[in-house]
This record gives sequence, C-alpha cells and structure tokens, in this order.
Amino acid sequence: MSELRKDPVVGRWVIISPERGKRPSDYAAKKIEKKEEFCPLCPGNESLTPPEIFAFREEGTGPDHPGWSIRVVPNKFPALKAEGNTDRQCDSIFDKMNGIGAHEVVIETPDHEVELPDLPLSSIKKILFVFKMRMEELSKDPRFRYVIVFKNRGQEAGASLQHSHSQIIALPIVPKRVMEELKGGKRYHRDHDRCIFCEMIGQELQRGVRLIEENEDFVAFAPFAARFPFETWIMPKAHASHYGMIQQFQYQTLAEVLSKTLKRLDRVLEDPPYNLVFHTAPILDEDLPYFHWHIEIIPKVTKIAGFEWGTGFYINPTPPEQSAAYLREVALA
Amino acid sequence: MSELRKDPVVGRWVIISPERGKRPSDYAAKKIEKKEEFCPLCPGNESLTPPEIFAFREEGTGPDHPGWSIRVVPNKFPALKAEGNTDRQCDSIFDKMNGIGAHEVVIETPDHEVELPDLPLSSIKKILFVFKMRMEELSKDPRFRYVIVFKNRGQEAGASLQHSHSQIIALPIVPKRVMEELKGGKRYHRDHDRCIFCEMIGQELQRGVRLIEENEDFVAFAPFAARFPFETWIMPKAHASHYGMIQQFQYQTLAEVLSKTLKRLDRVLEDPPYNLVFHTAPILDEDLPYFHWHIEIIPKVTKIAGFEWGTGFYINPTPPEQSAAYLREVALA
Repeated sequence: MSELRKDPVVGRWVIISPERGKRPSDYAAKKIEKKEEFCPLCPGNESLTPPEIFAFREEGTGPDHPGWSIRVVPNKFPALKAEGNTDRQCDSIFDKMNGIGAHEVVIETPDHEVELPDLPLSSIKKILFVFKMRMEELSKDPRFRYVIVFKNRGQEAGASLQHSHSQIIALPIVPKRVMEELKGGKRYHRDHDRCIFCEMIGQELQRGVRLIEENEDFVAFAPFAARFPFETWIMPKAHASHYGMIQQFQYQTLAEVLSKTLKRLDRVLEDPPYNLVFHTAPILDEDLPYFHWHIEIIPKVTKIAGFEWGTGFYINPTPPEQSAAYLREVALA
Repeated sequence: MSELRKDPVVGRWVIISPERGKRPSDYAAKKIEKKEEFCPLCPGNESLTPPEIFAFREEGTGPDHPGWSIRVVPNKFPALKAEGNTDRQCDSIFDKMNGIGAHEVVIETPDHEVELPDLPLSSIKKILFVFKMRMEELSKDPRFRYVIVFKNRGQEAGASLQHSHSQIIALPIVPKRVMEELKGGKRYHRDHDRCIFCEMIGQELQRGVRLIEENEDFVAFAPFAARFPFETWIMPKAHASHYGMIQQFQYQTLAEVLSKTLKRLDRVLEDPPYNLVFHTAPILDEDLPYFHWHIEIIPKVTKIAGFEWGTGFYINPTPPEQSAAYLREVALA
C-alpha cells in the first residue's frame, strides 16, 4: 500500500509508493562521468573567467594566475547583473523589475578530477567559510533581499561544467519557496511556541529510522515527506535561522557531516548527479525563532513528470526510511 | 538586461534571461525517437493491461480484444490504489494517510506510430470527451477531492511507454499547486471582482506578442512569467472553472487549438519531450467565479537545476515573446 505524507513545514503532500520498489541499482545507470574536455575553471585558464573576486592562494602568486586552492569569480553568463536599480514596473496584471543581482562561481579545488566530498576536510571547511563570507558581503548591497548558495553536480543536474564548483546568487526579492518555508515555520511557532525544524530534528534523532549521519553539531536525514528517492537534508542541531550564524568550530563538524553524506550518496548511487541547496533566512530578517537554516540535497535519479508539474505533488518510489537505511549502512572506508 | 517577472496568479518570480539567448536549434538535440520495442498498449496485447474500463470500439468486438480506437485501462503500476479508507493519521508533526486513489491510462490510438496532434480531429475530440467522462465518473467517489489529467510525451518527460497515451489520477486531497492557483485567483477576485484568468486572456489577445493560436472558443499563448522556454497555456475564452463544464461544440474547437499548438511545438523544437497538464477546479467546489480551467504544456528542453529546486525560482533563457513568435510563425502545412 502506498502512503500519502505531508511535509510538516510547507504542507506539501507526496505519494510514497514502495510498491514501485526502486532500489539503488535501478538508478545507477545515471552516474556522472568526466569526459576529457577543455576546462575554463582549471589552473592556467584563469584569463577565461571574469577577474577573481576572492581566492585562497599561495604566497607570492597574483590574482587570476595559478597558485590558488579555492577561487571565487563572477559567472561569465550571469542570470542577473549588478548594474541598475530595482524599481518595479507594473503594467495591468503584469509585474516586472530589472534583472538585478549577483551571480558568482566558487571553484572548490584546482584539481579537475576531485569532487567536493573527496577533498581534505581542511579544504571543505574553507569552502564553507567562503560561502559565509560571500553571503555576508553580498548582503550589504541594499538592493538585495536574498542570497542563495547551491551546487549542481553533473549535467543531468544542470551543471554545464564538470570541474567541482558551487554557485552563489543574490536576488532583489525573496523567492516563493523560501516564503513558504518561513510561513510554515511561523504558523507552527505561533501555535506551539517552538521551532518546527528543531522539533523535526528531535523526532528524527529519537526515531532513528531516517537518520543518515550525525555528529555533535549536525544531523543528516531523509525527510519524512521526501519528494525524491535519496533526498537528504542536513541541519544544525542548535537553532539558527541564518547560515551566517555558523560558529567557527562548526565548520569542522559541518564539513565532516557534509563530506560523509555526499560520500554515502556516491557509494550507494554510484556518483549520481545532484543538486545541493542552502536554505537560509532572508537578508533583512533578524535572527528568527521560527526558521532554521539547512541544506537540501536532491540526487537526480528520476524524471520529474507531468503529474509533479501540474500539481506540486510528487511520487517517490523509494520510501525515505529505505533510502536512509541504504545510505546509513553502506561502508565508507 | 535580464528581467524579473511575477506570475500574476501565484506570485512566482522568474528570471527571463534573453542574454543567454537560446534559440530553438539549441534545444533540438533532445528530440524523442521511437525505438522498435514490444508495446503492451498495442492492439493484440490487451491481455497485458488490467481489464479495460472503457473503449470506443468497432461493433462486434469484445472488451480487451482488438477493434478499439481509444481504450481506458487501470495503470498496471498505479501510484495510488482504490481500496481502503482515507483516514488521516497524525504522529507528532508527521501527517499521513493511505495512498487511496485511482490511476488510469487513456490509450489515445491503436497506432503505435501516431502522435496525438497527428490524429484526425474526430479522434482528438473523442479523447477530450473521454477525459471529461472519466473525470466525472471518478468525481462520484466521495473519497476523492481532485482529478488530474496529464500527458507525458517522451522518456525525458517521464513517459515509460512510447505509445501515445495520457493518464488520469484521482486524489484524496487537493494538491498544493492547485491550492495556490485557487488562492491567487480568489485574492484577485476579492480585490477586483474579476477573474484574473479572464483578465489575462483579454491582455494576451489585445497585445498579441505572446499569442500562439486562437479560434472562437480557445486561445494558446506563452505566459508572461513563463518558467520554461516554449511553455504554452491553452485557455477557454469563456469563463469556466471546471473542465467538466466544456460544451459539446467546444470539443471541436479545443481539438483544433490543441492539435495545432502541439504541431507547432513539434515543428519548432523537432518533436520535443513534453508534459501536458489540465488545471481544473477541485471536485467539491461549485462553479467558481475566480478560477478558470486551462491546459499547461511544458516542453522538456532544459534541465531543472539546484537554483530552481532551492527557491521555486526559475531562470528562463528564452523570453515568452520570442517562444511565441517562433511558434506562431512556423509553417504548419
């Protein structure tokens, strides 16, 4: 018997359909493969990106030259641009505004062959720090309302370049999905005087069936109403609404959980394409008692079909308890 | 300069990014191809589907045998099943219910090689009638709240079978996306005492830049805040909240606009995979002054990436005015 489950935060119903019975091997055909090709993100090709915004680099090396370990550059084909104002124009029922924003690329390693989870923890910590630093910097622009950090791995997940990288986009509006999470969190907090995400973490730790990875500061689990097979969320155990509130000592513990979780996905699904997205509170909001920053990871192993588009209603052929068990039990060594 | 545009109904912002400048030929590589393979939907293989629910068939032929022109069968691998009750169970913050529903397949033609828009109008009219008939029948079950009709064409769009078919799913809840459209429509109606969809149709007919196809009863256009390149909506010109309110004479005019619109997409994008979804009001609602049934067609020509998943915020590299011009101007003969 399949089951309908409701996401506690945004109220989205999903069909969990275990009878469709998909196991990891049913998905494994989608694995990403790196082809030999010319790469504009590799050392030596720095002149092919716009001038760098920031880099960790060896002493004595100059900007836009080799010698860096992490490098941040503007996206060469930005979805949004920095110049202009954000005045809205309204024409009958149609609202629009200039495509103002920022679009940056974080090149996570000089090594074309290495993927994020396989980097040393010391490098992953630095990448996590760079995310925070760029978010803070972009948040100072009064035209922006939201900064999103995300990573597309593999062509099927929308990545146009193979070299390991993440992206940062600053937006002049707060996106709809974030508004929904804020609204759901606010409603729960009003009724129960508790953060629903904290509540969720408590439930997941207590039940254990959807747990994937855990340390003193962070927990990774398959969400109760997972939309996708092997969908995985990472949350800080202590309440914090903005990623920018991360503590110095938490870079290490987040790097650990993130690296292990991504390695588990790579082992079980054989290097799947995925999208990884930071969900954080909007720039202008103070510390919110009802929102809790987190990371959502969505391996791209199924096609999104008409049913999903039409309804915002998902069919997930692998129950999250089963996804979590596969991920929890796979050997990492 | 790219532009941010807001969907007038649900308030979703999208980035329209013409500088990424995608033309139809940039997408054409995705075209679907029919391979030779064994097909359970072909005549002669009727025993491989569950027993038929309905068929148009030649006199003297019996159920589950050849001789049919359109055939409706239960989905062999249904996402939801008919047996059981819809009691909700609540366990702390987690709500769930049995996966009760119906999942049917409408086989649109006995001919494995023919696609929906290339069928004679008389056949398309019958298919549109079958959608209405099955919707009405399923709406009688007091456990159901919503019936969705959709079509996935091509593997990239989630179709597991090549033979031209649509699907019908009855649900015990009203899906989130539909709730959002209802809410947006209701808000506009409260403030302006008009249907926002009627308003949109008026604007599109008057401006013409996003028009694709039109006759006395229906209009096809690229929506102002299109999420995807070549996204196309078909709407009845006269206000009606439920697809079930379609008039007898409108099967002909809807078949015309639907067939021509899909042919235009096939010509311009070279037989793309797509999802086609009927948006109609929930079963239990009476005729609503603020909702307007319509069809949304989404060619699958781009990958949905992390940015979209994270935010509910889309980047569309082909402005709808440009999509509409390509579709409007292509020769159909």
